[in-house]
Amino acid sequence: MNQMNGYIVSLVPPSNFRHHSLKLIHLFSAGIDSLANHPILTDSAIPITTSSGIHGPPIAEWVILTTLVASKHYATQYEWQKQHRWATDRSELRGTTDWVGKTVGIAGYGSIGRQVARVFSALGANIHAYTASPRPTPSSRADTGYFVPGTGDPSGSIPRAWYSGTSKTSLHTFLASGLDALVIALPLTPATRHLFGEEEFNVLGRRALPAPTSTSTPTASPTSIPKTSFLINIARGPLIDQAALIKALNDGTLSGAALDVADPEPLPADDPLWDAKNVIITPHASSLGLEYVRRSYDLFMTNWERRERGERLFNLVDRKKGY
Amino acid sequence: MNQMNGYIVSLVPPSNFRHHSLKLIHLFSAGIDSLANHPILTDSAIPITTSSGIHGPPIAEWVILTTLVASKHYATQYEWQKQHRWATDRSELRGTTDWVGKTVGIAGYGSIGRQVARVFSALGANIHAYTASPRPTPSSRADTGYFVPGTGDPSGSIPRAWYSGTSKTSLHTFLASGLDALVIALPLTPATRHLFGEEEFNVLGRRALPAPTSTSTPTASPTSIPKTSFLINIARGPLIDQAALIKALNDGTLSGAALDVADPEPLPADDPLWDAKNVIITPHASSLGLEYVRRSYDLFMTNWERRERGERLFNLVDRKKGY
Repeated sequence: MNQMNGYIVSLVPPSNFRHHSLKLIHLFSAGIDSLANHPILTDSAIPITTSSGIHGPPIAEWVILTTLVASKHYATQYEWQKQHRWATDRSELRGTTDWVGKTVGIAGYGSIGRQVARVFSALGANIHAYTASPRPTPSSRADTGYFVPGTGDPSGSIPRAWYSGTSKTSLHTFLASGLDALVIALPLTPATRHLFGEEEFNVLGRRALPAPTSTSTPTASPTSIPKTSFLINIARGPLIDQAALIKALNDGTLSGAALDVADPEPLPADDPLWDAKNVIITPHASSLGLEYVRRSYDLFMTNWERRERGERLFNLVDRKKGY
Repeated sequence: MNQMNGYIVSLVPPSNFRHHSLKLIHLFSAGIDSLANHPILTDSAIPITTSSGIHGPPIAEWVILTTLVASKHYATQYEWQKQHRWATDRSELRGTTDWVGKTVGIAGYGSIGRQVARVFSALGANIHAYTASPRPTPSSRADTGYFVPGTGDPSGSIPRAWYSGTSKTSLHTFLASGLDALVIALPLTPATRHLFGEEEFNVLGRRALPAPTSTSTPTASPTSIPKTSFLINIARGPLIDQAALIKALNDGTLSGAALDVADPEPLPADDPLWDAKNVIITPHASSLGLEYVRRSYDLFMTNWERRERGERLFNLVDRKKGY
């Protein structure tokens, strides 16, 4: 990889970039926030690529981990272990449930949402996808972005239902589709800020129960389905109206939430979110892992080879659009 | 289901069974321990079926949950949350890793092992299966037992490698195949008691590293692979020499263990297993869930329909073999 160092700018772009003959700048980050107003962005035309697309595996594992911590009441069992207690009365575990035949909604079906779908589907859940733009055809559902090889849903064939549209009605139609869990994997933009608030939590929480299945045929849905939904946010805190979320958790509109992001970050120690009912909070750490840097280099090498072949680069920053 | 009650005996078989015209007795349990020496077993010829095969989904979720608790250092983040601490220094999470390109060995490839394989495979891991009897052909790899519809690995096509044999050499060949995790899903028999002891942990822990992959091609194995293995036991405690396990954990031969079973149960509060390094212990609770009874009835109904059609019953107890 040494021969490539001249072309890689990781955390701090060189101040004297005009004297370099840089052909490509690749960022370790998924966004370009770190370069905001930097002359290399505003005054140069050097191609810049991001590391978007490499986050699927660790973040999907975080989603599955925290969802199972909640649905299998792991915190109770963890505390038992600390007390050296082999509980023979399992009444504290009453209500544990698994994901066979459950429905998981995924808002934002990129590299992260697709890997989440892959794993929940393996657990036996049905997937409902939601994207801003409609995806009516098989080809429109394919993943055209970068993703870690062997992961995700390249063809977009996993979702049993696919919702789209940017109107409130479109979003609510998706949220009312019988979701036992909702995973938020959308980008934060002016249009998505506080996209999920009191109304949306009410739609999620008051959903109608699916029609009962016949008892005479074994199906993949032999579950006593909870009436409320579990919310997972691995995107950005401000996608959610956090005060409304705290209320929805505390009054039982939602059965719980797993949040790797908050508003603001760091979340102050006296924020009421910490003490909301059935909430799991981690400090924006879901994408961490030993694999991160290596995968970012893999993406860079893939782009370098595509550049040599004159092909489209993954994650090429559009300076006019600003991402 | 009411019309079937006359044929279902759940926890307590009737003492006056001779006066019943029972056609089939279905047990909620996977084994027949509860009927040991009971006259309905020893003196009657009434067909008895067990609930073996319905445990895949909840136990596979327990395996994934506890493995991710370990690999993503969840306990640290859980304690942070209790302290209302949004950690900005993540050095305590150093070493977290995901399962893309890792190798998971599954000893015992029945309904549980197959569902574990399905989920680890979705996470990006390669599966190595181990069974007592060889499975050289595709048809020999199919699951001929009962399993929850939509789960598992019905065709047996998920494993990248399949090991078999009952000799120590056969077992060690499997254990030396580069396993980042080993899931024990074998039945406990005189032949499998203490199957996993000091020698086996040494083989697991001292495994050779796989050959490095080229850096110029993105692969599914971009990982810094730990040198030791994580052990998971969801079967029975005495499959493991527990004193040897404690030693292997404390001296770092194994990177950790997740145990839903122990020897003995309940595990006494002063047992040294509780304080072994990197151990996760739960009180034989991995199969619990709201779905259990419903799935057992599903299996019974399936068997009842097969009986009507004159087909082979799932899990029919062989009184001579004793299971």
